[in-house]
Amino acid sequence: MFCNLSPMIDFDALKSEKGLILAVVQDQLSREVLMCAYMNREALEKTVETGITHFWSRSRQQLWKKGETSGHVQKVKEIRVDCDMDSLLLLVEQVGGACHMGYRSCFYRNLEGEVVGEKVFEPDEVYKS
Amino acid sequence: MFCNLSPMIDFDALKSEKGLILAVVQDQLSREVLMCAYMNREALEKTVETGITHFWSRSRQQLWKKGETSGHVQKVKEIRVDCDMDSLLLLVEQVGGACHMGYRSCFYRNLEGEVVGEKVFEPDEVYKS
Repeated sequence: MFCNLSPMIDFDALKSEKGLILAVVQDQLSREVLMCAYMNREALEKTVETGITHFWSRSRQQLWKKGETSGHVQKVKEIRVDCDMDSLLLLVEQVGGACHMGYRSCFYRNLEGEVVGEKVFEPDEVYKS
Repeated sequence: MFCNLSPMIDFDALKSEKGLILAVVQDQLSREVLMCAYMNREALEKTVETGITHFWSRSRQQLWKKGETSGHVQKVKEIRVDCDMDSLLLLVEQVGGACHMGYRSCFYRNLEGEVVGEKVFEPDEVYKS
């Protein structure tokens, strides 16, 4: 178990919706918001056990270890819960980039579509078919 | 219209779910993640028009101007959208605290229930009955 995380996760104490809870992922050092995803009980438990973020992919309907293909894992430093107990905030050390488009953060555009985020890798080189 | 925000919001271009899109709110200066909430078309349009965050309250099923009672409004400085077009990141200037419990951020506890956030007001004094 990853030493800085809670030794006693009680998923039932959280207000999940259809078994899922929202997780916002933030870079612990730069404080950049990297991405949002959802966790089920297994994803949260795996995250705490391994210290590496795991999510539930709603599109693929399966457990998803972030960075499994790319190597761009997120090492979890701290997990916070919000006042309503229905969202988690994960403070992480991000290896490479969080976004499959090659950016450090998934929030790399403003509403006009202008790119404001930093590109850190080339998706074609990382996700080889 | 608030000058720094997009003059052309196209809610239809976003991937809403049941007419709602997730909004993560972050303090522009401290980079603290303050809260998560949902926006419908009207909430996003009101936010852009006024430069003050508006959300859709899922529990009360009504438009909700953040800070209407407390005066703790959020002045929007920038809006970003994620790669999947299903989440927004709002960079704001937070007046007072974002959390109805009196904390600067709704994420004021870690998973053990330990308070790690800063208390900035007394709810009893702000929300008078």
